[in-house]
Amino acid sequence: MDLDKKVSIAVVRRLPRYYRYLADLLKMDITRVSSKELSARMGITASQIRQDLNCFGGFGQQGYGYNVESLYNEIGNILGLNNKYQAIIIGAGNMGQALANYTNFEKRGFKLTAIFDVDPELIGKSINNIGIRDLETIDSYIKDNKVDVAMLCVPYEQTPIIADRVARLGVKGLWNFSPMDLELPYDVIIENVHLSDSLMVLGYKINQKLKNGKNKK
Amino acid sequence: MDLDKKVSIAVVRRLPRYYRYLADLLKMDITRVSSKELSARMGITASQIRQDLNCFGGFGQQGYGYNVESLYNEIGNILGLNNKYQAIIIGAGNMGQALANYTNFEKRGFKLTAIFDVDPELIGKSINNIGIRDLETIDSYIKDNKVDVAMLCVPYEQTPIIADRVARLGVKGLWNFSPMDLELPYDVIIENVHLSDSLMVLGYKINQKLKNGKNKK
Repeated sequence: MDLDKKVSIAVVRRLPRYYRYLADLLKMDITRVSSKELSARMGITASQIRQDLNCFGGFGQQGYGYNVESLYNEIGNILGLNNKYQAIIIGAGNMGQALANYTNFEKRGFKLTAIFDVDPELIGKSINNIGIRDLETIDSYIKDNKVDVAMLCVPYEQTPIIADRVARLGVKGLWNFSPMDLELPYDVIIENVHLSDSLMVLGYKINQKLKNGKNKK
Repeated sequence: MDLDKKVSIAVVRRLPRYYRYLADLLKMDITRVSSKELSARMGITASQIRQDLNCFGGFGQQGYGYNVESLYNEIGNILGLNNKYQAIIIGAGNMGQALANYTNFEKRGFKLTAIFDVDPELIGKSINNIGIRDLETIDSYIKDNKVDVAMLCVPYEQTPIIADRVARLGVKGLWNFSPMDLELPYDVIIENVHLSDSLMVLGYKINQKLKNGKNKK
């Protein structure tokens, strides 16, 4: 299977969802699934599913469907979930603390090794057994430790400055929670989380439903 | 313009991003923009942009481009941002507190009116001037007040139970932060936020870059 083939980012963004659904099927001891059944569960058309999964090579078999376990493992491989990434959180406010308590990330290959903040009240404390360090010490921490990902939970105005600082230090990826499309002139991968985008989609759906005066999902 | 035309959810999900970019252009006093310029800024192909915006009627004009302000307003209308939704947060842990402090939502038409929790230490306190109430009182609160959206920041196991409870009480939309695809047999719109999906996409991109040993965004 040619994994180096260029896959569209729209397909990549759907893979975590396939991965979660397949995990549910595995838990229920379901060993095979057709694109039609996946379609009914996921609300994606069967043809879209076949097209998506074909991008990565022919996992399915006509009349048999997909082998749940092998499809699950393949998608995990494609997403690189077997890789181990070391991650730090910058900003131990509510969002940073919420992330530090969110144990699901470790299952996805992301291990939290440190948290940084500027607040003397917080420095020295721990969240979920991870110590909060002084942001002043981040340069030497990143130099001495292999840090792959920085999760940025800092105030809006500080975000580009801190992002710039850690990108220069060689962090490979930034996961940004400030409501901005962060861009940097460095060789760093940025994934921006826009919570209000999802809220706007919810508003759109409510609006459509009110207009149509009938059920619509 | 026929707004009732069925628009694919994939297009709808891109609209908040257009909306944010156009807001940036407005701030810079830019009055018109071509699909090509939008494409360069947003990393979406110009043809995809034209196709997306055509779904809602012909905003663009050949050789002139799009009028930034009118496109911005139209997308805001389509998203229903002029509607006012009353929202409550259920669960005043870190994620609930992060959302309560996130003032951006009000700009998107969502007004936070109450927060609910079960913890006696939290009940009676306020976050961002919104009082935390006893979850026991939520039924009468929803009956007495117009609540459009409940933001669910409760523990994983509690999520389906509380979702069911507020859906029965007539809340129109649920914004769910537990890592599950919540589904209910009622007439309620659910938007699930899967933070780790976004993290997996970041991992994928880092993995691709390491494999290719060259810049890739």
